[in-house]
Amino acid sequence: MSPEFELIRRHFIRPMRGDALGPGDDCALVAPSPGCELAVTSDMLVSGTHFLPDTDPRRLGWKTLAVNLSDLAAMGATPRWVTLALSLPQVDDAWLAALSDGFFECAYIYGVDLIGGDTTRGPLTLCVTAFGEVAAGKALRRSGAQDGDDIWVSGQPGRAALGLADVLGRLRLKDACRDDYIAALEKPLPRVALGCALPGVASAAIDVSDGLLADLGHVAAASDLHAVVEDAALPWPALRAACDDEATVRRALLAGGDDYEVLFCAPRRAHDALRQLSESLSLPLNRIGAMCAGRAGDVSLIDAQGCELPIAHRGYDHFS
Amino acid sequence: MSPEFELIRRHFIRPMRGDALGPGDDCALVAPSPGCELAVTSDMLVSGTHFLPDTDPRRLGWKTLAVNLSDLAAMGATPRWVTLALSLPQVDDAWLAALSDGFFECAYIYGVDLIGGDTTRGPLTLCVTAFGEVAAGKALRRSGAQDGDDIWVSGQPGRAALGLADVLGRLRLKDACRDDYIAALEKPLPRVALGCALPGVASAAIDVSDGLLADLGHVAAASDLHAVVEDAALPWPALRAACDDEATVRRALLAGGDDYEVLFCAPRRAHDALRQLSESLSLPLNRIGAMCAGRAGDVSLIDAQGCELPIAHRGYDHFS
Repeated sequence: MSPEFELIRRHFIRPMRGDALGPGDDCALVAPSPGCELAVTSDMLVSGTHFLPDTDPRRLGWKTLAVNLSDLAAMGATPRWVTLALSLPQVDDAWLAALSDGFFECAYIYGVDLIGGDTTRGPLTLCVTAFGEVAAGKALRRSGAQDGDDIWVSGQPGRAALGLADVLGRLRLKDACRDDYIAALEKPLPRVALGCALPGVASAAIDVSDGLLADLGHVAAASDLHAVVEDAALPWPALRAACDDEATVRRALLAGGDDYEVLFCAPRRAHDALRQLSESLSLPLNRIGAMCAGRAGDVSLIDAQGCELPIAHRGYDHFS
Repeated sequence: MSPEFELIRRHFIRPMRGDALGPGDDCALVAPSPGCELAVTSDMLVSGTHFLPDTDPRRLGWKTLAVNLSDLAAMGATPRWVTLALSLPQVDDAWLAALSDGFFECAYIYGVDLIGGDTTRGPLTLCVTAFGEVAAGKALRRSGAQDGDDIWVSGQPGRAALGLADVLGRLRLKDACRDDYIAALEKPLPRVALGCALPGVASAAIDVSDGLLADLGHVAAASDLHAVVEDAALPWPALRAACDDEATVRRALLAGGDDYEVLFCAPRRAHDALRQLSESLSLPLNRIGAMCAGRAGDVSLIDAQGCELPIAHRGYDHFS
């Protein structure tokens, strides 16, 4: 074995907690739990597209896994296993050590085993496939929202977008929140505990990766409903305290991705259960609107009088 | 949805044969069969590292999937599902149409459903994760070989390496076999039927992706045995008929990867069953040596008198 390949094995093979057959054979072997479906998601992160080339590798390792766990959370699945395919322009021992530390820190916290993957030479690219388990038939699909359901969102969407604007030098956030907002961008917390608690409570869910209104549009389209967001119900105060530019704040909250909050729909009767869940998880859950029949696939933003407000930006598209 | 994203969806969403929840939600959902383990493998193909930038996209699409199915075959697993993550420098409709045609041709022939993935902008990179099912406890691991087992290899290893040498202009293969050898490189046939038939017959297996002797070394190391290859038992005649340069022929067969043949070990008593299997699959299976106690992890090449021959090349390493 070459020294370089040995180096990669050293960084990416660690003791596993479960009983899967991990790296070292042609395939990993996992035994899904009886009665469960397997939720599967893949995300590819490319240097220059998804992260800046000089991003702290420890945070990059964390985020590479976290964005996939967020997809599992949005289906209501419990994370179990993950593969990592890695293309590297060169082997940099210190950089790889930091990357793997961040990756495994996230894996450890969320109870995931790295079971396999691939390493090759090429432009810096990371591709994770993550596997979670969910009771058969209980997964939260985008298509499950019902007429009259409330729309909810976790946490504080918009922080990552403001953090990115600061990192890129486009604005300067207030010192009191700057580190937190950059951490929201570089080390997002996937809402795993929330996701695992939502099956049976929520009717539909998605994680906010491309933008709140854009991702809500996916739910509206899949559910054949009209999503109506109440501007006054959105969590504005924290963002306004962080940044004085109202247009930037509005764009960050409505169209900023990369926070990996969970947007979900739930019937009115779930209101109290969700308030209790919010308290037990110490995670804000805000009701921001409702799903309505008619205008299938549309997303509207309304003011306190019920008048539609213009929407300048909905989200991010890699190919636009 | 942007026109570009729509384009990608058009090329990569096709009717599925199984009942998995496919692309379009945060995750795919699959229901593994009761009593089965899931075999999972990931391979990343990078332009310029794994394929030439001007490779026929239809063949590239085929190969991207085929190399993963080969890993499943080497575990004795039946292919079921696959995800594809794709990084593209630009959206080229005709190129994508050809790529997806090749990918889905392979998926259709081997009974695999594309259940999800990712598309993004970046250097041309393809990352597939493939899932197969195998009866619990029956998967073929590299570590299962026993002292005295025969070593077998399917088909004709070395063809892809000679095909590559021709494509790169380093030699000119005889016309009678040239197209076949280039097809072995660009459109390899994963040995799925063989792999599915080997559990219960073979003791260990690996697919030959990096080189016959290199990959055999992985089996020897995992099984704590000495692999002894009999030079005279190797399938030389076809390669010698294709190419006059004996040194190139030797390197292609002993150290050439990319054929995706299956190398496996089996007890002597399996000999007749394997001969019958070879006939029923119309696939040559050659016994090329034996596994011996002692010198754990070593691979030797011996002549007809049992004397060790020098080994110039064993295989390919991306980081050497």
